[in-house]
Amino acid sequence: MKDMITNLPSYEDMLAAHERIKPYIHRTPVLTSSYLNELTGAELFFKCENFQKAGAFKVRGASNAVFGLTDEMAEKGVATHSSGNHALSLSYAAGRRGIPCHVVMPRTAPQAKKDAVRGYGGIITECEPSTTSREAVFAEVQAETGAEFVHPYNDPRVIAGQGTCSKELMEQTDGLDAVIAPIGGGGMVSGTCLTLSTLAPEVEIYAAEPEQADDAYRSFKAGHIIADDAPHTIADGLKVPLKENTWHFVSNHVTDILTTSEDEIVAAMKLTWQRMKIIMEASCAPPLAAILKNPDVFRGKRVGVIITGGNVDLDKLPWVVGY
Amino acid sequence: MKDMITNLPSYEDMLAAHERIKPYIHRTPVLTSSYLNELTGAELFFKCENFQKAGAFKVRGASNAVFGLTDEMAEKGVATHSSGNHALSLSYAAGRRGIPCHVVMPRTAPQAKKDAVRGYGGIITECEPSTTSREAVFAEVQAETGAEFVHPYNDPRVIAGQGTCSKELMEQTDGLDAVIAPIGGGGMVSGTCLTLSTLAPEVEIYAAEPEQADDAYRSFKAGHIIADDAPHTIADGLKVPLKENTWHFVSNHVTDILTTSEDEIVAAMKLTWQRMKIIMEASCAPPLAAILKNPDVFRGKRVGVIITGGNVDLDKLPWVVGY
Repeated sequence: MKDMITNLPSYEDMLAAHERIKPYIHRTPVLTSSYLNELTGAELFFKCENFQKAGAFKVRGASNAVFGLTDEMAEKGVATHSSGNHALSLSYAAGRRGIPCHVVMPRTAPQAKKDAVRGYGGIITECEPSTTSREAVFAEVQAETGAEFVHPYNDPRVIAGQGTCSKELMEQTDGLDAVIAPIGGGGMVSGTCLTLSTLAPEVEIYAAEPEQADDAYRSFKAGHIIADDAPHTIADGLKVPLKENTWHFVSNHVTDILTTSEDEIVAAMKLTWQRMKIIMEASCAPPLAAILKNPDVFRGKRVGVIITGGNVDLDKLPWVVGY
Repeated sequence: MKDMITNLPSYEDMLAAHERIKPYIHRTPVLTSSYLNELTGAELFFKCENFQKAGAFKVRGASNAVFGLTDEMAEKGVATHSSGNHALSLSYAAGRRGIPCHVVMPRTAPQAKKDAVRGYGGIITECEPSTTSREAVFAEVQAETGAEFVHPYNDPRVIAGQGTCSKELMEQTDGLDAVIAPIGGGGMVSGTCLTLSTLAPEVEIYAAEPEQADDAYRSFKAGHIIADDAPHTIADGLKVPLKENTWHFVSNHVTDILTTSEDEIVAAMKLTWQRMKIIMEASCAPPLAAILKNPDVFRGKRVGVIITGGNVDLDKLPWVVGY
């Protein structure tokens, strides 16, 4: 498998990314909750990327890609397909550099996310809500514009950027036993693996995934990538499949992948809102849901929990409108 | 007026309060939002007491009162009447000391607040939603128990405790031109006046109030306390009237009181949720609403904004269920 990969980011790439993107990102706070510590029996450290620029960790990878371009490459702009936060983040980063950003986005994506992409100056072309349609429409857009493709998670520049999150987390805490992050395409989990496998190899890395979009879980158990087309889950940022670069990190460095039901995801989301007074997306909730569901795995441990984003349509909360 | 007051807290009382309560409170973070800075033309520093223990700044004053009691006084417990967060906070503080806390609370208070008070071990007696009823029922409870009365805002121990918030805010920022806080009974505003009039007398102090519960505004303009019985506003923590101690601070140290409509309050609340990804109560929203409504007052200034609490019934959000 490794022989097929020529394009993996290194630990030094991650360090360079952190220097490159620092002017454009927040060093987000790490919050704790004595209530949730008592409830779980673990000591939880929430890395709040919901407070990140553009409302999600994805601005790390997007900024690294945008600001790493030569002027000549940058001129034609950047392009991507995304279920939301990467689109937003790439639009933000492109705006900061003053270059165009083309976004192919499912027509079913939350209106709040479409509005936010346009608010950051992104140019949207809509596709059907399936991986197949998304890739076809994207090919057209890229052919027309010549823009530099920045894949939402498989791009090594993006993975290196996401790795800066767990670098900060380790700097902000006094040692951890484990880190847990949600997994969709695996960009954040891969960045976490990239950083921790060098910086703190003793730290266990867990990924949490919706049962209803459990392709990473099944891939992990099978030993090869399994992809679903258009799975259905409230955690809309986690529908996409692993790709070769993220599969490399997940298969080599992840301790386990834990899955949670839709009800468990919504309950963990609402609990976090109620007790921590922070707004996080449904896509951020599987880690806490997994900790609550598997207390024996985490009890007595110091656990970093990556809250990946906070871009929610407040008029369509799942416990109000259903899911 | 001053001659009538024998019981005002001093700056030294505030400093002593901060030492006394430190083990029981969070030093809450100060957050910023480049979006809201651009929108308002001011530089805003949000002191996030929504992340405070028990979900509100009121735990500062309550803890100061509870932990300042002699063992003999503490034995019979504490008692109060409150529209919510003081009840919660006093129950929390009493629980930490291991003494009973009796709470008289309007039967119309949000169920989430009643549940939370009971969750912290508070003993609730319900009254009608008017100041008159509340005071009558409270007199009975106090006569029965002999518990020490801790008024939600007029108590000098409470005012001294609330003053610790702006002490931290000044330590966490590099100088401010103004501070703005919501005003109901005036506990937070009085604590802010107590602290800043000595620590940073150049800082302007603004209070923000719902138009539909504008008794502090009318008092300020008239030069004497005007009280309403049972005003109606979504900002349910701001319905109570000023009392002699808070009137002293408000009348002597506040620069101005600004009022906002219910629509402006809900819009500012939702905007904060959307852009800052934090959960704050409707009662916290008048300051941002007032800044948006009066841009000329705040433009170009460094403004501390006190986010007073985050205890919200997530099943009854005003933009979903109406208000």
